[in-house]
Parts: sequence; structure tokens; C-alpha cells
Amino acid sequence: MNDKIERTQERILSSQQKRKADFILRNAQVADVFNLQWKKADIVVTDGIIVAIDDEGIFEATYEEDANGGYVIPGLIDGHIHIESSMLPPSEFSKILLPHGITTVITDPHEIANVAGAAGIQYMLEDAQSAEMDIYVMLPSSVPATSFENAGATLNAQDLKPFLSHPNVLGLAEVMDFPAVLNGQKDMLQKIIQTETTRNIVDGHGAGLDASQIRGYRVAGIQTDHECVTAEEAATRIQQGMYVLIREGSAAKNLRDVLPAVNSSNARRFLFCTDDKHLDELIDEGSINHSISLAIEEGMEPLQAIQLATLNAAECYRLYQKGALAEGYVADFLLLADLTTCKPQAVWKNGKKVAENGEICTTRNDSIKVPSLILESVHIPKLSLQDLAIPFQNGNLANIIEIEPNQLITHKKVAKVEVENGVFVPSVEDDYLKLAVIERHHHLGNIGLGIVHGFGLKKGAVATTVAHDSHNALVCGTNDADILLALAELQKMQGGYVIVADGKVLSALPLPIAGLMTDLKAEIAAEKLHDLHKALLRLNPELKFHLFLTLSFIALPVIPSIKLTDTGLFDVTSFKHIPIEVISE
Amino acid sequence: MNDKIERTQERILSSQQKRKADFILRNAQVADVFNLQWKKADIVVTDGIIVAIDDEGIFEATYEEDANGGYVIPGLIDGHIHIESSMLPPSEFSKILLPHGITTVITDPHEIANVAGAAGIQYMLEDAQSAEMDIYVMLPSSVPATSFENAGATLNAQDLKPFLSHPNVLGLAEVMDFPAVLNGQKDMLQKIIQTETTRNIVDGHGAGLDASQIRGYRVAGIQTDHECVTAEEAATRIQQGMYVLIREGSAAKNLRDVLPAVNSSNARRFLFCTDDKHLDELIDEGSINHSISLAIEEGMEPLQAIQLATLNAAECYRLYQKGALAEGYVADFLLLADLTTCKPQAVWKNGKKVAENGEICTTRNDSIKVPSLILESVHIPKLSLQDLAIPFQNGNLANIIEIEPNQLITHKKVAKVEVENGVFVPSVEDDYLKLAVIERHHHLGNIGLGIVHGFGLKKGAVATTVAHDSHNALVCGTNDADILLALAELQKMQGGYVIVADGKVLSALPLPIAGLMTDLKAEIAAEKLHDLHKALLRLNPELKFHLFLTLSFIALPVIPSIKLTDTGLFDVTSFKHIPIEVISE
Repeated sequence: MNDKIERTQERILSSQQKRKADFILRNAQVADVFNLQWKKADIVVTDGIIVAIDDEGIFEATYEEDANGGYVIPGLIDGHIHIESSMLPPSEFSKILLPHGITTVITDPHEIANVAGAAGIQYMLEDAQSAEMDIYVMLPSSVPATSFENAGATLNAQDLKPFLSHPNVLGLAEVMDFPAVLNGQKDMLQKIIQTETTRNIVDGHGAGLDASQIRGYRVAGIQTDHECVTAEEAATRIQQGMYVLIREGSAAKNLRDVLPAVNSSNARRFLFCTDDKHLDELIDEGSINHSISLAIEEGMEPLQAIQLATLNAAECYRLYQKGALAEGYVADFLLLADLTTCKPQAVWKNGKKVAENGEICTTRNDSIKVPSLILESVHIPKLSLQDLAIPFQNGNLANIIEIEPNQLITHKKVAKVEVENGVFVPSVEDDYLKLAVIERHHHLGNIGLGIVHGFGLKKGAVATTVAHDSHNALVCGTNDADILLALAELQKMQGGYVIVADGKVLSALPLPIAGLMTDLKAEIAAEKLHDLHKALLRLNPELKFHLFLTLSFIALPVIPSIKLTDTGLFDVTSFKHIPIEVISE
Repeated sequence: MNDKIERTQERILSSQQKRKADFILRNAQVADVFNLQWKKADIVVTDGIIVAIDDEGIFEATYEEDANGGYVIPGLIDGHIHIESSMLPPSEFSKILLPHGITTVITDPHEIANVAGAAGIQYMLEDAQSAEMDIYVMLPSSVPATSFENAGATLNAQDLKPFLSHPNVLGLAEVMDFPAVLNGQKDMLQKIIQTETTRNIVDGHGAGLDASQIRGYRVAGIQTDHECVTAEEAATRIQQGMYVLIREGSAAKNLRDVLPAVNSSNARRFLFCTDDKHLDELIDEGSINHSISLAIEEGMEPLQAIQLATLNAAECYRLYQKGALAEGYVADFLLLADLTTCKPQAVWKNGKKVAENGEICTTRNDSIKVPSLILESVHIPKLSLQDLAIPFQNGNLANIIEIEPNQLITHKKVAKVEVENGVFVPSVEDDYLKLAVIERHHHLGNIGLGIVHGFGLKKGAVATTVAHDSHNALVCGTNDADILLALAELQKMQGGYVIVADGKVLSALPLPIAGLMTDLKAEIAAEKLHDLHKALLRLNPELKFHLFLTLSFIALPVIPSIKLTDTGLFDVTSFKHIPIEVISE
């Protein structure tokens, strides 16, 4: 308390010009997100806090810079992201996004929690502490995602409770299990109620829910939705008392469709998020800065778009000192090189310059040492050819997973497949390949086997431990030898992506942090990722879609129509496991 | 927790039509304060929470009413009030304001805290519990208000801290002592910082402060201001990151002046409050309903005015389930008889009708038993004529308090006064009357004496224990005998207002709760108040101003220019005590 008082005393002295300020950014066009106006002024900072927006030029500071009349806006806030989707740990993620002007993100460590449970959340919180960016955490509400697969952990309300008092925890992350909510399932309600009781916020996940279902969500205490895909849907959510996070990520791009719902009366209830965005796109275009740029392109007033990305996000997530440029606010801001593209020339975090011309310029935020539990999370058993055999009667029909390129959904295809010696044999001609999901958390020995159509591999195999939401080992291959090799390589590098063909590893990106994130520098990881994509073309020269993305959702048994988990083939429509072989009755 | 879960389960079931709702108000024009639109729908309530805004008429309930197409708006919120100024305890205050549609108030028990300290706050919190209205408390930040007088208590940061975890405490009340803030006074900063740490809000009191002083306020952590008197000042406050509470009370009426600052871009940062409003006016015109009506009269869109009075106030004070009509919100609403006057035909609190046609219709909320400490707070010593003597040299000039009718400020008048036997003698001809402030809390024996000009009493004396902010016994009289009688009567009835003349009590309103609030029903207290005002005319038949109001601020030594406390005459301009007698040098 004494330290806080002394720091506040220094800031007050500085605000009253009784002490030199630490830093002044002079001659700025300062965004006033309360009135939606620009104001020509100096931004005066002491101890990381704005102590004056001074339009008289009367302040002095130890260090000064000149904005030369450029636009300065508050640091941008991503309302909902899964950092793991970037394949970077929080500290490295921070280095990539700060140059784009993102100074605060609210992350849901849903992926690592499904691998490492509470220890995964703890790791993300701790690594985030070493980041220059402010990284807040929403506690994953659905670990495991379903009971039809084996994840690395189970987190019930009691497991989450201790985290609620952590200063960087803002609430409960996207409550996906809407049947649990609408049926009043006790542990789910406890998760929500204990969050509200500590005055934290509860995020929703209203994908495809109608107004009646949203009623149940709202009554349960859910306050946000980032799954709106139309303006009409968004307008309904607002009317029902929700905040709407307009999502623009790698897979889901909803901004252009949802934006027409925003008007001057209801704008305060809208903010931006990315949800999932890939490493290469994050490096190239950033995240929320890109959302602002798109919104301006769609005709929104720049200051209105900036308000969504700053003040509105801060209000929604109850970050009362963030999201605006005024006295008492945290000194996070960016000088724009160009307003309409929202491209930052320089970025300040807590009043300190952290990026310039797209490059990070801070020596801080080295990653923390990753706990060994999290670095050794992949436990794929040594498998034999026999383990991969799919017994099959010649002439029978097979239930086949037919993918839809770049989509999370699949279709059930029923067709004849090739059989030799009583077992299924993959066919590159018909594009009936073998798919396997190997439980990799608890040595359970589960191997789910299936047949997939649509990946179009002509040889080799592709394997990964990024397989939503349980992140078991997932492999798709044209022959069992390459499948075994890919799995062995995955085990050796403790997770990641691997491409093999003809008994050789063609390319690999190790993701040893929980099998989800790299321990490499972002740029090196990006190069390896680029290399992986090139190697994929050697397996399928005609490849036109994002194979990894499509593959990574093939094990998620909550999205239609037919999926494969470590416990076997799962028919999402009938919500039960089904055999591969269609036995005629 | 189990009870909360079960209640949430029932509400969810009801939202999904799997259980009859408790209550439906059918055929309403429902205010959507998120989009600023009206929506024709039924409002469906279970367990005090809105479970559906249903535009299809598909819900059923145990009990129904019909709004016949009338406008229904969320319950109104008063952002800042001192309930003591109504002279009613919270439970009785609730009965008067609910019929006007005020369902939530945020009160600063500054007055009772200056009399009874923490016990006074505790009493207000407990009595509020028995009220049907939601009464939240901001903790008084300035007890005592100054060091130039003796209040009943001192509350430092440590004294306030235990209250911060009370569910009905929302933060720290109006921080008035701006020099303490700008000088970084430790206990003041501790009060603010401990409030922020518990994620509560800190109210400001920026009366007359300029943008530079507000910088210090903001940097210290102060978030609101209800003292704006011009639109320009309000616009500056908003730009500096504050919420502005537009005040319309009995003494201070700022609405018409401040309202032009509100526009569609910044409206979210404005709300309404009354600060201080008297019993008779509360009964006659209500409070925030009156603010809405005035705002509409001034040309504001009705829904915009309603939003200020509901959603904006709820957001500012972090009452996340209040201020809107949508699923998950508390079922506080009013059916309007007329939109432009904002006159409620009926009022529901937690889904239960509590008022109809201006009359309360609930049997709940009896006041709690008042602790004896608070009922026996007036300790005026038995005084003699000698105690009231003001020694004076004949021919010398006197420093005289000259009042300004209906204003809090006074002026210093220097004039010759009548002297007999070496003591000052009041003169009704010259209107130089005697003023006395008698310490009444701790038997200190302090008697402050002074001379006042402007009250115009022709006979008798007027006394009260309502004397901001220390609420000592205050008396103004034309002769010492009546002054002594008035004080004796005040002691007998344990505070209140008393009017005496010619050795007789003409009229009295006992306020035995801390010497500030009545234990009578509001209507009876209002009659007695009316009677008091009539009796005043017998002392001054020409009376044209609010004598009690003007009198009650004459002991407040923070407002210019010259005041009287129990420690003597105080010159606010030079900020020190001065003698009555001007001694020529």
C-alpha cells in the first residue's frame, strides 16, 4: 500500500507540474474516445500513467518525442483470443503484436488447459507476466470439451475458483456447453456464479443459438458473444443485453457481415476480437488494427472504429484504466503512420516505446522457463503396424469422414473401400486415406481409427498434436509405415507438425510447449511453418486449401457431422460412436 | 452457493418455458436502452429476474397484468444522494420515492457519519436492508469535513476499510478535500487506493476545479463529478475521463445548464443525480423522474434521457444487472402514465408491484430499531445567559456574517453593533441577530458565538441540529432567553428543528435519528415541516427565502466567505478563525 501511495503521490505532483514528467509525446492529434473528437495536444506521462493531455504546451519532461501532428490513439485491445492458436507462448506473442499496436489481449487458454489443466493456465499467467503487453486470462469453462474423448485434464468449478482472485484473471471464458447451461447443470452454474460473485465477467459462445436459447444464457449470467455471423443476429444479442465481439480471425471472418448492426445508439456494446489467428497472418497484418482498417473500409467513422477497439473493450472487460487517452489512464498508445489503415509508426506501452516501424524495440519480456510437465506432455505409445489395422469385410460399405476444405464441419460419406487380408487399405486414387487419433496424455492406450476423404495426399503422412479440443496425436496418411514414422517423430519432438513421405521426414515444426506452442522465436517458427506448407505440396501438388486448419478440427466431436476421437468414430448428428464398417442388417 | 444455483436453475427453466413464470406484464412498449428503441413485447419475470422480453406472446405465468400498450422503462437510478437531507431514514425514503419510479439510489451517508461515525454508516446499511428500494452506499471520505470544527466522529482509511466488502457498498463518496488530494495526503490516498483495489468506484466533487486540478483528481483515481454547473465544464470533465452526474436537487439545480453538453457520441458518460433534495419536494415531484421530465422539456429524446437515468447510472456504478429491460436483468420497471412527464402509473421492484398511481402498495420495509447511540446523539449542555454573552467594547466594529438568501456562500460585513453593559445586544431593527453553534457530540463545552445579518427575524429564535457538516446545535435568535429555550427544546427532542418566540415553542419537527432524520411517517413529517414554515412567518412575516436551508450551511467552513463553527468565527478566505470584535490597531 505504501508503495502505491508513493507512486500516486509522484504522479499527482507531476500532474500539477511540481515535478518533471517522465515523458512527453508532443504535437499529437489525440483521439478523444469519449467525445469522438480529435484534440491537438501533448501527452504527458509519469510512472506509466497519463498525467496530462496538455493543449497549452506547458509541461516539461525528462524525455520527449514529437508526433509531428500525427494521429495518436489508445492501445488496441483484443477482446477474445486463444493465444495458443498463434503457436507462440504469451511472451513471444506479445513481441509480434505490439508492433501492430495491440497492447492488451484477453486470452482464453482453452487449448493448453485441455492438455495440462490448471498447470497450463498457471504457465500462461506466468509467462504473460514477462510480456510487455498486458495479457489477461479468462478461465476455460469447458475442459474437457466433451465426454466423447480423452483430454489431458478435467477442470471443474472448484479447480477454477483459486484463479478468480488472480489480478490478471478477468472471468470465465466462452461457455460453449449450452445444453449444460440450459439444463441447469450444477457444476456449470457453479462456474458461472462463482465468477459473478467475484465481480468477474462470463463470456458466451452463442454459435447458432436462437433468441430463446440466448434467454437461458442471459439468465444464467452470460454477458458476451463473439460468434455472431450476421448483423441481424448481432442486433438481437445487443437487445438481449449482451456485448457483441465482432470477430475477424484466420478461419472465422465475420466483420463485414456483422458491422452493419453497429450504429451511434448501440456502438458502446460492440468491440473487436480475433478468436483464432495464425502466426503468419499475425506477423503480416496484426489483429485488431486490421479490424479497424476493415471497419473504416466498410464506411465506419475512424474514431468510432477506434472506440470499439479501445474504450468499449475496456468497459466490457472492466479494465477501468484502459482504452482511453485521458488523465489517470494507462499510457498505452500508438502514433499512426496512416489513419485509414491503422498502421502504427510507433507504439508506447506504459509510456515506454516498445515498437517502431513494425519492429519491437524493447529488451524486456524473455519467456519464462517452461515447467517440465508442460514440456513433456506428449506420450504416444510405441505402435506397431498391427495397432493401425482396421479389420474390414471385403465388400462391405464404410462410414467415411468427408472433409469440407477450410471448414470445421464434415460430412458422412458411405462407400466401398479397398480391403486386403481382412483389413482396410488406403487408396490415393479414391482419396480414401487412413486417419488415427492416439490418446497422448495419460498412457490410456486409446487409438481411434477412421477413413477420411478429401485431403488428397498422394503419398506419405501428416501428423500433429494440434487437434481441437483435446489435442491428442492426430495423423492422416497414405500408408501405415509413414503413419508410424510421423507419430514417432511427433513423439520425439514432443508435439508439433510433421510431414513424412517414403520413410523420410520432409519437414517439421516442433511445438514442445504442451504440444501446442513453439519455443522458437516467432520469425523462425514462421519460416518453418512456411517450409511445412511447401512440403505439403510434395504430398498433394494440387492442394488449394488450409490442410492443417481443416485437419486440426477433425477430432472435435461437437461440430457436425462425423468426427474421429481417441475413442473412435463419432456421429455428431446422432451424438454417438459408430463403427467404421457398415454392417448390413 | 447451492441456493444460488437452485434459483438460477428455476430462472433458466422459466426462460425456456419449462416452468410457468411468476409474472408477466403484457402488451408493453418496452424501452430498449441499448438500441434506443421501443419494442412491443411482454415482460416475463421469475424470481425477480427478467427471463424473457417476449414479442410473440408465448409465455405463461402464475400472475399477469396488462400494460395496455403503455411505455415501460427500467427502474430509475439516482447516482448520488444524501438520504439524510430528506430527513427520512432509508426505509421511509424508499416508500416516498418508489411511487415516483426510483428503484435504486446510491447514497453518501456523509451527514450521519459526521454525527455517529461507523455506527452511522452501519445503521444506514441496515435500515436500507429493510427497504424495498435498492439503496447502495458510498463511504464518506471526509469525516470530519474540516479541522476547524468538532464533528461527532473521525473516519480514516482504516475505519472505512471493513465496509468495502459489504455487498451494498459501491465505493468511496465524493472526495471533497481537493487540497488533500493535490498535496498527496497519505490517508486520503489510502482511502482512494483501497477502494480501487477492491474494484469499487471513487466519486469526486469537482466544484469550481479547473482542468489542471481535475488532472490531479483523475491521476489520484477519482472517476465522477456531480458539481458541474455549465455545459462547458461538463464537456471538459468528460474529455478528462470522468462520468458527469447531472444534478437537479433542491438547492443546486444544474440540469438545464449542463444538458447541452450531452450528445449522441458522449451520452454514455452522463447520468442524473439529486445530491440533496427536501422532503416536501421529494413527495411532490420525486427525483430522477423529474430530471427525465426536465431533460425532455429541454429537447432531449425521451429514450436518451431514460438511458441516462438507467443504463448509464448502472454502468457508472458497476451494477451490471440493473438499468435495462433484457433477459438476466433485475425486474425493476415502471409503466408510465405519460412519457414526457415520466409519471409512473405503476412501479415494479424485483418483479413485484410496489406502487400504483403514486401510492406505495407494499407491506414490507418497516424501519429497523434505531440503535440507542444514534437516538441519543444530542448532548447540548445546560446553558445560562452568561454562556451566550459576546463581550464587546462600545464603539468598536464587528465582523458580521451576512447571508445570501438561498445560497451557501456568505459575505463578511463590518459594522457597528449595539452594546449594553459590555456585551453585544441583538437588534431586530438593524437585523443584527445572535448566532450560536454549540458542540453537541462529545460534551466538549464549545460554544461558538457570532453575529448574523439577513435572516430578518423580528422576534424569537430558530434552532436546529441540521448544520452541515458537523451537525452541531445551531441557533439564531433575537434574544438570549428564546435562544436558551430553543436549545433546551432541541436537547429534549434529541435534535430537529424548533421555532420559539416569547418564551413559547411555536413549532417543532423532532429529528431524533442522529439529530438529522425523523422517526415519523413521511407524510406526518411533511405536515410538521409545513407547519414549521408557517411558524417561521410569525418570526419574519416578510420571509421570501428558504431560511432553514440557508441556516444549515452557515456552519460549514469550506464555503466562502465567513462562517461560524463550535470553535468560533471562521474566515474562509484567510482560512483562519477571527474575532467578532474588530480591534483597531
